[in-house]
Amino acid sequence: MPGTVPTHEDHVDVLIVGAGPAGLMLSTWLSRCGIKTRIVDKRGTKVFNGQADGLQCRTLEIFDSFGFAHRAWRESNHMIEICLWNPDENGRIRRSDRIPDTIPQISRFQQVVLHQGRIERFFLDSMKEHSNLTVERGVLPVSFEIDEAKAADFDDYPISVTLRTLSDKEATPQQRQQHQKSADGQRAVVDDGLFRSNLVADDTDDLIRAATADSSRDGQVELVKAKFLVGCDGAHSWVRRQAGFKLEGDSTDYIWGVLDIVPITDFPDIRHRCAIHSANAGTIMVIPRENKLVRLYIQLQATSYNKNGEKADRSWITPDIILQSAQRIIHPYKLDYSYCDWWTAYQIGQRVGDHFSLHDRVFLAGDAVHTHSPKAGQGMNVSMQDTYNLGWKLAHVVKGYCDPAILKTYESERRGIAQQLIAFDHRFSRLFSGRPARDIIDEEGVSMEEFKATFEKGNEFASGIAVNYDASLLVAKGSKIAESNDEYKCRVTSKPQLATKIDVGKRMPSFKVLNQADARPWHLQELLKSNGRWRVIVFPGRLTDPRNMQRFQQLGQKLGDPDSFIRQYTPPGQPIDSMIEVLTVHAGPRTEIELLDLPEAFHPNHGDMGWDYWKVYVDDDSYHEGHGQAYANYGIDPSNGASVIIRPDQYVSWVGDMDDYEEMARFFSAFMKQQVAGKPGAANVRVPFMTTKL
Amino acid sequence: MPGTVPTHEDHVDVLIVGAGPAGLMLSTWLSRCGIKTRIVDKRGTKVFNGQADGLQCRTLEIFDSFGFAHRAWRESNHMIEICLWNPDENGRIRRSDRIPDTIPQISRFQQVVLHQGRIERFFLDSMKEHSNLTVERGVLPVSFEIDEAKAADFDDYPISVTLRTLSDKEATPQQRQQHQKSADGQRAVVDDGLFRSNLVADDTDDLIRAATADSSRDGQVELVKAKFLVGCDGAHSWVRRQAGFKLEGDSTDYIWGVLDIVPITDFPDIRHRCAIHSANAGTIMVIPRENKLVRLYIQLQATSYNKNGEKADRSWITPDIILQSAQRIIHPYKLDYSYCDWWTAYQIGQRVGDHFSLHDRVFLAGDAVHTHSPKAGQGMNVSMQDTYNLGWKLAHVVKGYCDPAILKTYESERRGIAQQLIAFDHRFSRLFSGRPARDIIDEEGVSMEEFKATFEKGNEFASGIAVNYDASLLVAKGSKIAESNDEYKCRVTSKPQLATKIDVGKRMPSFKVLNQADARPWHLQELLKSNGRWRVIVFPGRLTDPRNMQRFQQLGQKLGDPDSFIRQYTPPGQPIDSMIEVLTVHAGPRTEIELLDLPEAFHPNHGDMGWDYWKVYVDDDSYHEGHGQAYANYGIDPSNGASVIIRPDQYVSWVGDMDDYEEMARFFSAFMKQQVAGKPGAANVRVPFMTTKL
Repeated sequence: MPGTVPTHEDHVDVLIVGAGPAGLMLSTWLSRCGIKTRIVDKRGTKVFNGQADGLQCRTLEIFDSFGFAHRAWRESNHMIEICLWNPDENGRIRRSDRIPDTIPQISRFQQVVLHQGRIERFFLDSMKEHSNLTVERGVLPVSFEIDEAKAADFDDYPISVTLRTLSDKEATPQQRQQHQKSADGQRAVVDDGLFRSNLVADDTDDLIRAATADSSRDGQVELVKAKFLVGCDGAHSWVRRQAGFKLEGDSTDYIWGVLDIVPITDFPDIRHRCAIHSANAGTIMVIPRENKLVRLYIQLQATSYNKNGEKADRSWITPDIILQSAQRIIHPYKLDYSYCDWWTAYQIGQRVGDHFSLHDRVFLAGDAVHTHSPKAGQGMNVSMQDTYNLGWKLAHVVKGYCDPAILKTYESERRGIAQQLIAFDHRFSRLFSGRPARDIIDEEGVSMEEFKATFEKGNEFASGIAVNYDASLLVAKGSKIAESNDEYKCRVTSKPQLATKIDVGKRMPSFKVLNQADARPWHLQELLKSNGRWRVIVFPGRLTDPRNMQRFQQLGQKLGDPDSFIRQYTPPGQPIDSMIEVLTVHAGPRTEIELLDLPEAFHPNHGDMGWDYWKVYVDDDSYHEGHGQAYANYGIDPSNGASVIIRPDQYVSWVGDMDDYEEMARFFSAFMKQQVAGKPGAANVRVPFMTTKL
Repeated sequence: MPGTVPTHEDHVDVLIVGAGPAGLMLSTWLSRCGIKTRIVDKRGTKVFNGQADGLQCRTLEIFDSFGFAHRAWRESNHMIEICLWNPDENGRIRRSDRIPDTIPQISRFQQVVLHQGRIERFFLDSMKEHSNLTVERGVLPVSFEIDEAKAADFDDYPISVTLRTLSDKEATPQQRQQHQKSADGQRAVVDDGLFRSNLVADDTDDLIRAATADSSRDGQVELVKAKFLVGCDGAHSWVRRQAGFKLEGDSTDYIWGVLDIVPITDFPDIRHRCAIHSANAGTIMVIPRENKLVRLYIQLQATSYNKNGEKADRSWITPDIILQSAQRIIHPYKLDYSYCDWWTAYQIGQRVGDHFSLHDRVFLAGDAVHTHSPKAGQGMNVSMQDTYNLGWKLAHVVKGYCDPAILKTYESERRGIAQQLIAFDHRFSRLFSGRPARDIIDEEGVSMEEFKATFEKGNEFASGIAVNYDASLLVAKGSKIAESNDEYKCRVTSKPQLATKIDVGKRMPSFKVLNQADARPWHLQELLKSNGRWRVIVFPGRLTDPRNMQRFQQLGQKLGDPDSFIRQYTPPGQPIDSMIEVLTVHAGPRTEIELLDLPEAFHPNHGDMGWDYWKVYVDDDSYHEGHGQAYANYGIDPSNGASVIIRPDQYVSWVGDMDDYEEMARFFSAFMKQQVAGKPGAANVRVPFMTTKL
């Protein structure tokens, strides 16, 4: 190819293509774990406005594990209630229902809305705080090769990607910077998001052609050898095409318009999330946003095809046209605006990638493997959760801590979620785009009762909390199959009856517990920071019960042994909690127990830094924040206890007997590598994961 | 004076000397209000470590009103429980009591500990975000004059201060940068805070002498003409000396040592706040801090005077000496450290300034007018609250919104608080420094029951919530005195029986209420941002009761009238909520009321920005955060209602009938200036306070 002679070469563990939310989640994860990473994006700048999206409860929980949920929580608009508006018997819209936007008690966070530019900012700030990794913008991959012979050797770099730096002009999207006045001269339109809409063709190939044709810029080409390549490069993914994979599914015909405005209206529920079904004029979804803005998703009375079945001209789509549609739907209420922050239009496409991974070396995430309608507020969330699932697995394999077999769980876990997402979106879109039924015999219309039921049911899925990973090496569900010799299956089985409200395969629920040493309340999830560590949480029950105390002490002795599995999997010289952290939540009462009377394994001695006061917690009443009732909420009997193994991404791997050291050891033995000097895994030991900050 | 010929001259509204917490609180306030301010500090850098202090509940509430409490809350150590340790009958220390560190329910925050450098950082970041104001470091005031003839004209600049810029060397404190190893060679001592201790003489005069002697640097002298001068320059205040005022009070003899260490100990309560009274070896206060640190205040077995009654040599004070004292006190428990972050020693001095203000033009705040022992964690808090009290008053007078008479309330309100603080500290120090009584007939010893009772009682004072300002122009307490012609008294009287749990003169308590437009829960205090606005909070009761609705509508009509007091005091052309903001909290139920059905005065129309959806709230159940029970907690009868006037610093000015427009108008008429074009006050109108951010 002309103009692609690399002038220098680099070796990285992971190369990420695309610096949207999925790519940034991955680079944040990898930078926390000290993995040598590069992340490139063909655009010259990050997103500044528009592209708002809902943030699910689960996404906020993940943000919190990285330390920046509070920024999103403070800046965002919180969505509390959904109001459903439908035609009455005279065809006039009226509020028919109110339902909570987030199911009460499902999470300590509720769904909020914030524009994507701020979310990308949080990731960038967090990366800057914890590493030297920065996004290389205006950089385009132009060629890809994988040496399949090397794919099985995870110390080798089988992937070769040529990167080309674009000129500033090339990297700037051809956005229609109109600053137009509308017909009546009153409204200035600031920004147009059509350039990223799926109504417009992808420009990647044009960029590659233009960049490579210009042979005068050969100096800006570089060859990167990588262990892993991850495509977070959107619906038109270049990485997906290199891997030879495709998206499967369909588009619907309808075009939707989007306006981000400060509304001037007498519609009473403009600050609630609303689904407004008019009798004949179409549907609006109202999403109240931060900074007085409201986003309106407005069904346009047109399809993307003209009468001859050809792709229709999109030049007729303007903010005024979209507003007029909205005004017809919301009638008899008035709707207008002076200030428009952003607008776009799109067509719903519902597709899932046929594969998510090539040889466990190339991975696809986010829009590269699933596209759907934006109105359910899912897209950005599921995309970020893809790479939240992938990040720690890559880090553990790169570091030589885990067997590469764990990488297979990325596709098995995330492709199922993508399929559920599309199925959800199908149901939701059909009900949302349809005309309301006039009466029960109007079979063409959409039943508003069915709509409400779907909406309510969809809420659990939409929270992100419902994600439930299937049995695998990492999730001990179903029967024990240690004998089956299947290297991809878990070697142990859970005893779900010991913690009836903790679901193996789902994320660990969170309730408040008190630190034994200082009585401060913490949400349990706050203890599960995303720093690459596995956790064993021991719930020993009431330690005033001598039997419980005895079992707890025996477990402490085994965990503290120099040959314990924890020590075996911890790189020599590293703190004992740096790979597998043991946390305790006893059943109280707090004042009956002295921390330093408990076995050292539960509050390690860090030498010059003294005892560890941040490992033992208690389910007891607090002075200022009530009683978390953790044992009751987890369904654990305080007279018996339980232990739980939690993955670095907060998903539950195993539930078993409080003192079942042997099953814990067996669980980890299926995929973790011994780190003892002179033993096989040790060759792979590099810089360990970060330890607790002073 | 040689070397002090100013080469240029500047005019400012307010000149602040000293950029510690008191000075930074004031500059933050003034920058929020758009007041032309300069702030100088003789030190070349801000504080980096040491000087930790407790942050009271009230201080965190104030930080939240400026938008940065969450930063302190996240980074600080939260103090939950106080453990009292005393000798048992054998003279061995044992835990005798546990009491909550913060009185439950007193505030939505609890007392926390964070080092002063971070707190100064929050102020600096906030100033940067909201203004161009920066601290001028290494700048020293060297001369002061006030033209008393001009003091009564608040448009004039009667104060002249000469400022001199120091060289880097001059501005760097002579801190003993030892990096020493202790006797056993194990402990590296990082930093020494003795240089700021009251055991060392003030260096201001030396700095002035050195700086003015060097005539080669004449170019760095500047004359500043100011309307107001505020001395936040510490216990040795230069400004106080210029004003001719003094501190009155005494010092105690005992010397206390302070160590900030990561402790290595088997003492069980090292992560609780503890008061440890040994039988004969003295007392320790344990203050667990952020980042694994613990601060120990340790009574040394020495006084600051030697046998001849002369000031003792302080060179014998080392970290090892302090540690050895601690080890004797905490025996039989072991205490040691490898890491020491900071240490110092001090002598308790308890003094209050004789005056806080000169001609209402020069003001003193913080350590310049009160000094006391640090162990009660009060110093920084009371200092910041001094200038939080002063800031908005200065701003309102500079802007021409209020009569300068309001400035008299600074001394009347804050000097009383300083006196209470010293009285508290007297009691506390005596009990803390004393030897525990051996039995009830040991009259020289301190009764541990009395100590506990004082500690518990002191907790309300220590929270900062107990502050209760006396009757004044700004606080409608006691009987109506409109007839007495006293220009400094309030013209109205409150009806406390209408809101039995709101104390006129104290800060407005906070409970959760829901936004009427979007059902989001907010703590009421979150609505009372520090942006210079007065608030009228209308509690109309249950609006489903026609009588309440009628009274509410009548009030709305009067408030919305073009001649209403709100419009009269609002600069022409400014939004109607920019001087006096009307908020409503009705008694629900939320879903029975439509916001847009209420009178416009309660949800103003902002033209191009549409209706205001952020003024009306409801006391109702929320989906995720319970029911705030605001009416019950405020002691307001929902069948009758009440109205409350709240100062820009969140203190309650007046409680009266829900619809008593006339009393509200009369209250403001005593000190606010009409802003209508052509009328007297209008000449003073400058840039208005910030309006709500888009």
